[in-house]
Amino acid sequence: MTFTILIAPSGFKESLSVDDVTQAISAGVRAALPSAEVLEAPMVDGGEGFTQALVNATGGHLHEATVTGPVGQPVSSFFGIMGGSWRRTAVLEMAAAAGLSLVPKSMRDPGRTTSYGVGELILRALDHGADRILVGCGDSGINDGGAGMAQALGARLLDAEGQEIGFGGYELKRLADIDTSELDPRLAHVSIDVAVNWHNVLLGPKGVARVFGPQKGASPEQVAELEAGLERYAALIHRQMGLRLGKANGSGASGGLGTGLVAFAGATLHPRFDIVMQYLNFDQMLEQADLVITAEGSLDGQSPYGKVPCEVARRAQERGIQTIALAGTIGKGVRETLDNGIDAFASIIKRPCSLDEAIDKGEKLLRRAAEDAMRMMIVGWRLADRPAVAQGARR
Amino acid sequence: MTFTILIAPSGFKESLSVDDVTQAISAGVRAALPSAEVLEAPMVDGGEGFTQALVNATGGHLHEATVTGPVGQPVSSFFGIMGGSWRRTAVLEMAAAAGLSLVPKSMRDPGRTTSYGVGELILRALDHGADRILVGCGDSGINDGGAGMAQALGARLLDAEGQEIGFGGYELKRLADIDTSELDPRLAHVSIDVAVNWHNVLLGPKGVARVFGPQKGASPEQVAELEAGLERYAALIHRQMGLRLGKANGSGASGGLGTGLVAFAGATLHPRFDIVMQYLNFDQMLEQADLVITAEGSLDGQSPYGKVPCEVARRAQERGIQTIALAGTIGKGVRETLDNGIDAFASIIKRPCSLDEAIDKGEKLLRRAAEDAMRMMIVGWRLADRPAVAQGARR
Repeated sequence: MTFTILIAPSGFKESLSVDDVTQAISAGVRAALPSAEVLEAPMVDGGEGFTQALVNATGGHLHEATVTGPVGQPVSSFFGIMGGSWRRTAVLEMAAAAGLSLVPKSMRDPGRTTSYGVGELILRALDHGADRILVGCGDSGINDGGAGMAQALGARLLDAEGQEIGFGGYELKRLADIDTSELDPRLAHVSIDVAVNWHNVLLGPKGVARVFGPQKGASPEQVAELEAGLERYAALIHRQMGLRLGKANGSGASGGLGTGLVAFAGATLHPRFDIVMQYLNFDQMLEQADLVITAEGSLDGQSPYGKVPCEVARRAQERGIQTIALAGTIGKGVRETLDNGIDAFASIIKRPCSLDEAIDKGEKLLRRAAEDAMRMMIVGWRLADRPAVAQGARR
Repeated sequence: MTFTILIAPSGFKESLSVDDVTQAISAGVRAALPSAEVLEAPMVDGGEGFTQALVNATGGHLHEATVTGPVGQPVSSFFGIMGGSWRRTAVLEMAAAAGLSLVPKSMRDPGRTTSYGVGELILRALDHGADRILVGCGDSGINDGGAGMAQALGARLLDAEGQEIGFGGYELKRLADIDTSELDPRLAHVSIDVAVNWHNVLLGPKGVARVFGPQKGASPEQVAELEAGLERYAALIHRQMGLRLGKANGSGASGGLGTGLVAFAGATLHPRFDIVMQYLNFDQMLEQADLVITAEGSLDGQSPYGKVPCEVARRAQERGIQTIALAGTIGKGVRETLDNGIDAFASIIKRPCSLDEAIDKGEKLLRRAAEDAMRMMIVGWRLADRPAVAQGARR
């Protein structure tokens, strides 16, 4: 029976990709515990890196595709076909077709950007014979409720004169009729699962226009205009399609793309880590694990609120598995993580140094931190033979 | 049976005294392991802080004494009477009477400074009825071979005309005769143990003049003059007293004070950590310990060569006890410490920060580092129940 460690970290923002992080921790663990078996579950949210991570985890392949970008110009994009299943499962991230990083800074008006390319990616996946599609939401640069995607899939969004409306959230104010008769018929036979931030809703004070509009460059007047457009869009979806989505969990994900995916692609929304962990076979890996190591750029009082380390740790704790967290910065409020599944944590920083130096040497520091944490843990398991520990000091 | 942790750290140079370090680690350990018993052995070398540490460790008392400082002016000094023994044991550090920090920068010529005050401290200890005296060497500002101390104890160091020579190493060149007939008679009935750096010798290429003279401010010519004086001094001690000390271990400790202590006070020299640990009852504490925690400002490739962490760890390892080291800086070559008794180490630094910030918050960082290391260790001992660990992954 081999001692098995499940490595389930996040990427380190602006420093290390989640794969870099996973590899560095693996190398460190093996240096201290050469006999251990290492399982890898690089954790992603639905945003940038989602496709690559799931393709890597399943031994699948990436495919390139040119689609319409958020400002209407062609962009070079991609989707994946996952490996390891008798079904043909495609995976794509909305950010690869309509992400904020694809919107030039000078054009950051979320009322004018479109999710059209997301629909095109879905069509490409269908062209590849996908019978299941996993869509990741996050890092979006749009606010059109998924209307552009719906248009790409064949829906006709018409104004009062029966003319197709244009791209972007502002146009939704003019929406008068939805015609779904020409939706791609393949959508009826594919199951689409979407990884969303479960707390994002389409409308209202916590809706996508008011919460995320300003982050994407909208003025207060533009936010009000966007909200009005999305209200009209939701009202028509309700009236014509029978779906009441405005306050549904995830309906506001990625500028309201969650709403469009449910209404026009028959998708099911899922809390992002639930779906990511399901596709990564996280629970099966957890079944085999004796210990979990997670990591994030910063571990602090915010970590229990939807960040990877505590999401991972809580699931491990439910199965009686301990979790160690490694972080670039151990920040204020970190002790809250001890009430949220984390059993021990360590920083990768080994001496006074600048942030730039820490980022520059991040990979080596993380590898060494994993090795050093394992050594500290091994001190503990060797101690377990001592009478004082065997007789109950062990809590 | 209580889980027992022995805390045996060094001070952190220019940041935390050894007592601060010991207390911070104790507090951190108790936060993570409230039920553990904590034993404290603040480790010192023979230099500054030696007296206070041994007085604290034994529940003794400090006594003030004004003595002749290294440049001939009165200085406020001190010695200790240790507690906890039926014998009356005094403890003093040579640095409190002839330390480098007592030599004004403008007067840093090691050929002119004297160890006279060290002899006076010994006399004060005898006045207090000491039947055993422990002398710490280190941080010295003299290079007189202990000649000044010998004069204070009653020895007469005479030139060719039968006149007393003056203070300082240069004067030793004029030494023609040693008269010990008027040495304080109490010296015959007291045992004096000296804690020295075992590798310091009086004469030759690795002798005290050549190695330490320049550090104390001597020019190459002055170094040659000092060496000549010490050679004459050693030759007379050999001829008149039958003691061949020039290359003996510890003979060069504290500017050659080791030589003077052996010749004129009948002292026995000991490797500093051997004697410190003996007086601290280190071995008895180790007998009770399940785990040792040590610490130093920097843990690196130099640590195996006579620094506290590895000195402590090697002794622990001989008894099958594991040692964890905490440090402000984990430096280059640190992995060598793993071959020298250290089982695991951790830095007190938790995020990118400046050296000043680390020093400023040193106490809190160290407390938290001890707590965090204990949590990591506890993960390990809880794992010991898992079949994979019980069946042999534990090395």
